[in-house]
Amino acid sequence: MTSAREPLERFHAVIPAGGVGSRLWPLSRADAPKFLHDLSGSGRSLLRDTWDRLVPIAGADRIMVVTGRAHRAAVEDQLSELADEQIVLEAEPRDSTVAVCLAAAILELREPDVIVGSFAADHIIGRLPLFEQAVSEAVQTADAGYIVAVGIKPTGPSTGFGYIKQGAALEVEGAPSARMVESFVEKPDLATARGYLRDGGYLWNASMFISRADVLLGQLGETKPQLLKQLRELAAAWEDQSTRGPAVDRLWPKLEKVAIDYSVAEPAAAAGRMAVVPGLFDWDDVGDFASLAKVNSGGRKTDLAILGEHARVLADASSGIVVSQTSRVISLIGVKDIVVVDTPDALLVTTTENAQRVKSVVDALKLTGGGNVL
Amino acid sequence: MTSAREPLERFHAVIPAGGVGSRLWPLSRADAPKFLHDLSGSGRSLLRDTWDRLVPIAGADRIMVVTGRAHRAAVEDQLSELADEQIVLEAEPRDSTVAVCLAAAILELREPDVIVGSFAADHIIGRLPLFEQAVSEAVQTADAGYIVAVGIKPTGPSTGFGYIKQGAALEVEGAPSARMVESFVEKPDLATARGYLRDGGYLWNASMFISRADVLLGQLGETKPQLLKQLRELAAAWEDQSTRGPAVDRLWPKLEKVAIDYSVAEPAAAAGRMAVVPGLFDWDDVGDFASLAKVNSGGRKTDLAILGEHARVLADASSGIVVSQTSRVISLIGVKDIVVVDTPDALLVTTTENAQRVKSVVDALKLTGGGNVL
Repeated sequence: MTSAREPLERFHAVIPAGGVGSRLWPLSRADAPKFLHDLSGSGRSLLRDTWDRLVPIAGADRIMVVTGRAHRAAVEDQLSELADEQIVLEAEPRDSTVAVCLAAAILELREPDVIVGSFAADHIIGRLPLFEQAVSEAVQTADAGYIVAVGIKPTGPSTGFGYIKQGAALEVEGAPSARMVESFVEKPDLATARGYLRDGGYLWNASMFISRADVLLGQLGETKPQLLKQLRELAAAWEDQSTRGPAVDRLWPKLEKVAIDYSVAEPAAAAGRMAVVPGLFDWDDVGDFASLAKVNSGGRKTDLAILGEHARVLADASSGIVVSQTSRVISLIGVKDIVVVDTPDALLVTTTENAQRVKSVVDALKLTGGGNVL
Repeated sequence: MTSAREPLERFHAVIPAGGVGSRLWPLSRADAPKFLHDLSGSGRSLLRDTWDRLVPIAGADRIMVVTGRAHRAAVEDQLSELADEQIVLEAEPRDSTVAVCLAAAILELREPDVIVGSFAADHIIGRLPLFEQAVSEAVQTADAGYIVAVGIKPTGPSTGFGYIKQGAALEVEGAPSARMVESFVEKPDLATARGYLRDGGYLWNASMFISRADVLLGQLGETKPQLLKQLRELAAAWEDQSTRGPAVDRLWPKLEKVAIDYSVAEPAAAAGRMAVVPGLFDWDDVGDFASLAKVNSGGRKTDLAILGEHARVLADASSGIVVSQTSRVISLIGVKDIVVVDTPDALLVTTTENAQRVKSVVDALKLTGGGNVL
């Protein structure tokens, strides 16, 4: 679909704000998910920071938030300027394909030539001019018909992310760094990750995708035609409250849960329709407390990061991170790389090395009836 | 002073119940000192356990508790059978010489041939028949005119206790294991402690002293005549409320703070008046959280000891100790030899290796205005 308007004028950001962030329990939990917390020490929630960095690119009236019904009040509290038509409330979480593609389908009906970009609500990004530059290039590339990932330039041999293998350079005006995606690669082991870093042709997959709505939905139709049909039905019923409710009741329970990486990005790459723009900005998905410690201690491993407005910490010969949601005195003596998360009803003590195992505690609590603190 | 009554009939136990137990902060603190806690998992406070093991030896009406005014209600709550004349309330803490010798002076006026034994309110003792046997031998030895320590047979090369070097065997009827004390030795370094253990002639000094009141006070008179005079004045004024108050007001502020080890035991040893009976019972002074962990995990270093009536602990690959005074869920992941003490207003996270350093936190909190949690 060609358009008379410039690509950036047609750009619309989508923020899927779902996901509890189990690896950040007991800080993040069902009623206080990760995106509602200030994890960067900015004084603002991750969601608010996400919004604020998209406003200069898309404009405050061209950002859509997709979130759970339970989080509506909290989201609106964070984003007071959010208009009703800018929020899509999910009846139940249905993973990222539904979140992003339903938003795209709704937006496409409002604005057929729209270019949509999806941006996680719970990542930390720094050096914003570089972010804006990357998104701008991605939007130009999307207008040429590609589905475009913004891939993160690795700062180390991470085994916690999937990778994007870059292919040949593209010749898109306004997007000098855009390349084809040769393939998506699952989370590697350390030796492989080190190889990727040396090779230089690999980027981290941050699930940041930009494309024309028609291209995105066309791709989904090839791999998940049934899901696309359901999402189009929902979108058609969406604008009218009298039709939206019945459509949601009828269709939502049947919607397939699948990550957009699998339903769209990987098939698009295989079909030669996937491009990537390298992101040189600072990026962290704050995936666990080790990551949170790193982000908040300026990367110095010997430091103790302290989060919490009322934190009262007395530390001696200790490093790692303390997250305090109470006003209790917290005293650490001789504990290295420690993780202490102090909330009114749950306390976590672990080490940065074990940070990834926090999710297993949440799973255990689900099984053992500790659900009231999840 | 000779007496017609058998030594054990004249025995009277004194329990100095003072001392906060700073190394057990934030569990132990000014308004909840160590002796009021159940640290053995017995379901009873250390004070109550101390009382219960002295009753078979002295009788419930021949035990005197010396404690601070602030702890009166808590002590009486623990010891409902305590009569008014069995409690000595200290206006201010004045260390062990005042606590034990004032009690001895009061008891001597009531019963001139009394034999007094002092027993800390906050130690854990097991294998009680052996304890009773040792105290019995100590009482017999005391009747012969000695000041008698019950020294603990070392179970390892501890650097946390002073030692008693045993001298020649004594020939006291009913006390076959009594020996002279050759000297008291300050806390040694590890190499020296190992030497003591190999030598076999050294016992731990648990500050458990038994002697005739007249002998004890006579010894105090030689080293601290002024203090003895003050304590005798207090004792003389004690039984009448109308005289006790003014005497306390006048004398208490002047009383010297000195440990009975220095005012009585060491000078008595130098003068050849100090005897020792080895204690073969289980003993622990629960001096810090490492000790508390050991006592409560059956000595198995790989175990996690859990204290607290309402403790909800979820532990994975963790060892050490959790003390919970809240009903919060406490989750530990991959933390070895950890110490977590969770109270309503203060949290401590350290390791058993650093347990002795807890006192320094308390000192720091005193300086930095955190006194409300001490």
